[in-house]
Amino acid sequence: MAHRVFNFSAGPAVLPVPVLEHAREHLLSLNQTGIGVLEHSHRGAAFTSVLQRTQDACRSLAGIPDDYDILFLQGGASSQFFMVPMNFLKPDQTADYLITGSWSKKALKEAARFGTARVACSSEDQDFNHIPAACDCDPASRYVHFTSNNTIYGTQFTTEPERPDGAFLVCDASSDIFSRPMDFSRYGLVYAGAQKNLGPSGVTLVVIRKDLVEQAERDLPTMLQYRTFAANDSLFNTPPTFGIYLMGLVLDWITELGGLSVMADRNANKAGVLYEYLDRSALFRGTAETHSRSLMNVTFVTGDADVDARFLEQAERAGLCGLKGHRSVGGMRASLYNAFPQEGVLRLVELMTDFERAGG
Amino acid sequence: MAHRVFNFSAGPAVLPVPVLEHAREHLLSLNQTGIGVLEHSHRGAAFTSVLQRTQDACRSLAGIPDDYDILFLQGGASSQFFMVPMNFLKPDQTADYLITGSWSKKALKEAARFGTARVACSSEDQDFNHIPAACDCDPASRYVHFTSNNTIYGTQFTTEPERPDGAFLVCDASSDIFSRPMDFSRYGLVYAGAQKNLGPSGVTLVVIRKDLVEQAERDLPTMLQYRTFAANDSLFNTPPTFGIYLMGLVLDWITELGGLSVMADRNANKAGVLYEYLDRSALFRGTAETHSRSLMNVTFVTGDADVDARFLEQAERAGLCGLKGHRSVGGMRASLYNAFPQEGVLRLVELMTDFERAGG
Repeated sequence: MAHRVFNFSAGPAVLPVPVLEHAREHLLSLNQTGIGVLEHSHRGAAFTSVLQRTQDACRSLAGIPDDYDILFLQGGASSQFFMVPMNFLKPDQTADYLITGSWSKKALKEAARFGTARVACSSEDQDFNHIPAACDCDPASRYVHFTSNNTIYGTQFTTEPERPDGAFLVCDASSDIFSRPMDFSRYGLVYAGAQKNLGPSGVTLVVIRKDLVEQAERDLPTMLQYRTFAANDSLFNTPPTFGIYLMGLVLDWITELGGLSVMADRNANKAGVLYEYLDRSALFRGTAETHSRSLMNVTFVTGDADVDARFLEQAERAGLCGLKGHRSVGGMRASLYNAFPQEGVLRLVELMTDFERAGG
Repeated sequence: MAHRVFNFSAGPAVLPVPVLEHAREHLLSLNQTGIGVLEHSHRGAAFTSVLQRTQDACRSLAGIPDDYDILFLQGGASSQFFMVPMNFLKPDQTADYLITGSWSKKALKEAARFGTARVACSSEDQDFNHIPAACDCDPASRYVHFTSNNTIYGTQFTTEPERPDGAFLVCDASSDIFSRPMDFSRYGLVYAGAQKNLGPSGVTLVVIRKDLVEQAERDLPTMLQYRTFAANDSLFNTPPTFGIYLMGLVLDWITELGGLSVMADRNANKAGVLYEYLDRSALFRGTAETHSRSLMNVTFVTGDADVDARFLEQAERAGLCGLKGHRSVGGMRASLYNAFPQEGVLRLVELMTDFERAGG
């Protein structure tokens, strides 16, 4: 067994050890085929079965209705920022964006190239420290876009935002997908880069209502149309086969642990331990408002950049890695995705307690 | 050591065993960091070093001049089919396309969305069985696009095509990059999906002259501009980290074997054995004209689909896998990329000889 540290990275992030061990066994020969998982043709029986299993696991784990397509794309959430409006927002149409952090701002910026991209609400004037309680959408809006969890600011939606009757909901769920149950029937399109809760970087999960696939713009490059992926079962061109394989293993791992409700409880417990300590601490404090706190990314500071730096150094030495906050905000960030073990949170709180006791 | 068969797949394709063994060791902990290669943040020191090493290996192995950027994108060659014209072909401009197979036809189709995409030559009327000797380009062409190796039809350019003075050369080198020396200074832009000679699917290598990065269209989604990748060292968003890591290992493996000239000799020897047999055989015959033969994909038929099927079945049973020709043309195809071992070709010729002797 390899020596492992506690990896608090915001993504690419820690993966379940059983998944990595399984993948390791199949790198030179997938299921006794004599061909490694990376080397199988995407059109052969072995990979076709991998793809089908990953799709099935996705659908059954999250209860995704049959009238939704499950697609595997490339280019990360950053490519969905433009693909969504390119497919769904005409020059004379309006879409509403809920601005809760850097990622939603980037999505807004790309949308403005295609039509009217409205800010339906924003917490930017308070450093994105909360999820706005209400938003003001255009009644004629084509869709409402939001980022369900904000990795940089440590905030998370607890429920879906409201939307005008004729609009559909679009969610960038990159950093909290499958961390809790999710009612996909409330959404038109959900996308997620895999590298936080689903697998390695390089594969993007897109769950999209089939009627939207049909409605989407047709005069686009083939690879920028959702219908290309829907019509070809994500096999129009060579997909990121290893990422899809690994995502399947991660979904199986979640299923074996009991599914999304169990995962939600585990995640609430993990983050709860840390938030509880932060609420007691005289040295550290959480940066997000209580009601908006993320269970995926816990952001905190001491208020003194030098003390933060000293703490991060001690943490690194103690095998608690990747705790540095995003370069745009500083401080600390503990990313506690599905695969992050409870023990790591206990060790972190222990270290914080010791650090505080020693006077910072 | 896992049992391995001979994998003649056209891509994703066989990878060097030492590379797979190396990667396997680092799946749970990259270089004793306690964090697996898939789990490292793309902004951390460990991955930054991986990225730099892969770029350096690429540059030194192929002698890529300093005025070229080496970028890692996603979406495969299929995404380059539209990104090239989207960035470089205005509505009133013309680009020339050399049509030597299905991939160049797809590239042509995407280009036609943006400007005038001309067919400068084509071998389609002869089932793409050769590379046209000459092409007729528009003197005012913006660029000349060609596919250096045609996986489906088993043909390959032996040298760069000519281009008008003011045009730059664009090459889809997905299936023969780094299989032989290549003078990058003759090109404006070279792209290659990794899954044949470079690594796993999901990462696309783009080598582009820096002045072209500057000249490219600016009014495009951020993720569709080459300058986004050039300005951010391929780290504007999360790149496909594992693919870049594996590509680095593959390039190191080539370097250790002696570099691109040695690789070219090995490949010529491997394909040579098979072509020599095909030229002698009364049962099997190669489908490509002699002077256009690919050293990467050797396509052949018996002329009788039933006999082909019987041969493929025997081959599969003998551990010679993935020999079925592309679904659009049938017959057989032996893909002999860099990592394919000489022994596999000898075994194939042995089987073909036995099959022929037994009367097909």
